[in-house]
Amino acid sequence: AWRRPRPLREVLFFPSRPCCLEALLAEAAAPGAPALPCPCPLPRAETSLSRLVRRLLSARRSLDLCIFAFSCPQLARAVQLLHRRGVRVRLVTDAQYMGLHGSQIGRLRHAGIQVRHDQHSGFMHHKFAIVDRRMLITGSLNWTTQAIQSNRENVLVVDDAACVKPFLDEFERIWEEYNPTNYVFPKVSN
Amino acid sequence: AWRRPRPLREVLFFPSRPCCLEALLAEAAAPGAPALPCPCPLPRAETSLSRLVRRLLSARRSLDLCIFAFSCPQLARAVQLLHRRGVRVRLVTDAQYMGLHGSQIGRLRHAGIQVRHDQHSGFMHHKFAIVDRRMLITGSLNWTTQAIQSNRENVLVVDDAACVKPFLDEFERIWEEYNPTNYVFPKVSN
Repeated sequence: AWRRPRPLREVLFFPSRPCCLEALLAEAAAPGAPALPCPCPLPRAETSLSRLVRRLLSARRSLDLCIFAFSCPQLARAVQLLHRRGVRVRLVTDAQYMGLHGSQIGRLRHAGIQVRHDQHSGFMHHKFAIVDRRMLITGSLNWTTQAIQSNRENVLVVDDAACVKPFLDEFERIWEEYNPTNYVFPKVSN
Repeated sequence: AWRRPRPLREVLFFPSRPCCLEALLAEAAAPGAPALPCPCPLPRAETSLSRLVRRLLSARRSLDLCIFAFSCPQLARAVQLLHRRGVRVRLVTDAQYMGLHGSQIGRLRHAGIQVRHDQHSGFMHHKFAIVDRRMLITGSLNWTTQAIQSNRENVLVVDDAACVKPFLDEFERIWEEYNPTNYVFPKVSN
C-alpha cells in the first residue's frame, strides 16, 4: 500500500560553525561531476548552514524568498545557482535594508533574478523561503553572515500544507502589492 | 474510540491593526467576572495580536520565552498576568536590547519574573515562546509595538512534538548557559 511520506520537521539552530560549502555547491551546479578539492581551511562538516543550503538547493521548479536582510555571499551563490539551473526565483526584500553595505540584492538582480521590495516605512521583516511551493523554511534568521555565525537563531523546515499554504498566499499577496507598476511616488511641487 | 486531537497549525501575519485587548486581559485575570467597558476608541476586534495574546494566555503551568526585543506593553501585561496567576514564566533576552528605551524587561523583572540574558557580542535573536511545554509560538516578530503595527511579520503556532521538542531543549540549554553563576567578567588590571 502507498504510504504517506513522513512529514518533514527539521529545526536548525544557530550560530552555525563556519564550514566549507564548495563541494555542496559544486555538486548542485554539476551533479555527478567530480568535486575539485577546495583549498580553504574550513571543514566540510554538516552544520546548520549546510543543512539550510541543502534544503534550498533541493528546489526543482520555484523558490520564493521573503528576506529582510540578505548579505550572506554563500546563500546568494546558492540562490544564483538555482536561477541558472532554471528554477523560478522570486525575491521580496526590504527597501531600506537592500541598499546596505554588503547587501547581495544588487548582485542577485544583476544575475537576472526578479526582486521586489516594499515602499513602506515599516520593515519587510519576514525571513522565509518556499521551495517548490511545498516546503516552508522560516524563522528568526536574517541571511547575513553575522546572524549565521554569531547570533542565537532558529530556522524551521516543514512541509505540511496547513503551514505552507498561508505563507504561499501571503507571498503572492506581497509579490503583487510590491509590483513596481503599483508604486506611488510623492508629488513634487516646483 | 479516542481520537487524536487535530494538530494545531496557526499562522499569523502582521502588521496587525490596532485593537483593544482590555476585555481579553480582564477575562484572563478574573475569569467569569463581568468586563468593564473600556473607554478607549480601539475596536475589540480579532486581530493577529489578539490571537497571539490569546495563545499566550492559554498557559496553565509554564511559559518559556526567548525574545530578542520586548517593548510592547500589551504583551508585557499578558506575561505579568500569567506570572500573577502562578504560571512559571522564564524569560531569556538579549543583553544589548533589554536596556533600550521602552524595553519592558525591567518591569517584568520588577514583577518577580525570572529573566536571563546572553553575555555575547552576537545577538540573542530568537523570538519564540513555549506554552505549557507543548505549544510553540515562533516567527520573525519581535515583541515591539512597531513590529506589531508597522512591519510585515509572521508567527507560527504549532503543537507537534517534532517541532516543539528541539525548541524546548534549546531553551533549557540557553537557560542554563545564561545562568548568572556562569557569568565571566573581564579581568580588570589596576
